[in-house]
Amino acid sequence: MCFGCGPANTKGLRIKSRVEGEDLVADFRPEPHHQAFGGVLNGGIVGTLLDCHSNWTAAYALMKARGLDHPPATVTAEFTVKLRAPTPLDESLRLVARPSSVEGDKVTVEARIVASGKTTATCRGVFVAVKEGHPAFFRW
Amino acid sequence: MCFGCGPANTKGLRIKSRVEGEDLVADFRPEPHHQAFGGVLNGGIVGTLLDCHSNWTAAYALMKARGLDHPPATVTAEFTVKLRAPTPLDESLRLVARPSSVEGDKVTVEARIVASGKTTATCRGVFVAVKEGHPAFFRW
Repeated sequence: MCFGCGPANTKGLRIKSRVEGEDLVADFRPEPHHQAFGGVLNGGIVGTLLDCHSNWTAAYALMKARGLDHPPATVTAEFTVKLRAPTPLDESLRLVARPSSVEGDKVTVEARIVASGKTTATCRGVFVAVKEGHPAFFRW
Repeated sequence: MCFGCGPANTKGLRIKSRVEGEDLVADFRPEPHHQAFGGVLNGGIVGTLLDCHSNWTAAYALMKARGLDHPPATVTAEFTVKLRAPTPLDESLRLVARPSSVEGDKVTVEARIVASGKTTATCRGVFVAVKEGHPAFFRW
């Protein structure tokens, strides 16, 4: 049901992240109501795309590092978004993310949005696997 | 029409920021589809609330600093969101923001979300007034 990546959330962004080599990638087509102003994607939606996609990147990195058969439940600790150029509203966007470090329960992920071959926004986020008892533990 | 603060965007967050002393504040009631998982607000929506509200804080700070009768058009350069505790989905949230520096066209803003008296998320953002010719120039 997650606003960013929940397949059952009909009003959400329904980000579908998939493995491609060393990266996690996703393709996203914005809707008109995701705009900041005419033709430009809202910066908060930019952040939502990068945050959710990076969280899955972190979960997958921990799954591989630990040799698990499913990803652990992870949550965002913090993320920094840099808006480098207007992200267009009217074309398909590519999300690309890769873990830069895995330390214990903590994964740092670098991610970007690419539109027509140009990086319009970047993100560095820190994500943490949660333990039983945390409100996020296997709630998604 | 902005997804975060546009009053005409019926599918947006419709953040209404107002001046209260030294701060800009806003009250926001999440909708069920804004969740991350049961009872908890999505981190991307947290970021969207803080980004848009901080952008208005920056525009208002420049309006005051320059003695203008309307806020200049500003855009987000970057923002960092720290999720300090789960932000609840089922209650009214208070957004609070204040500029920490104004240097030329650039304003740094510190913002937070408060739920039932507790700060659940903080944000530091940098916002820039744009000049004629920029795609954002008086487009909102």
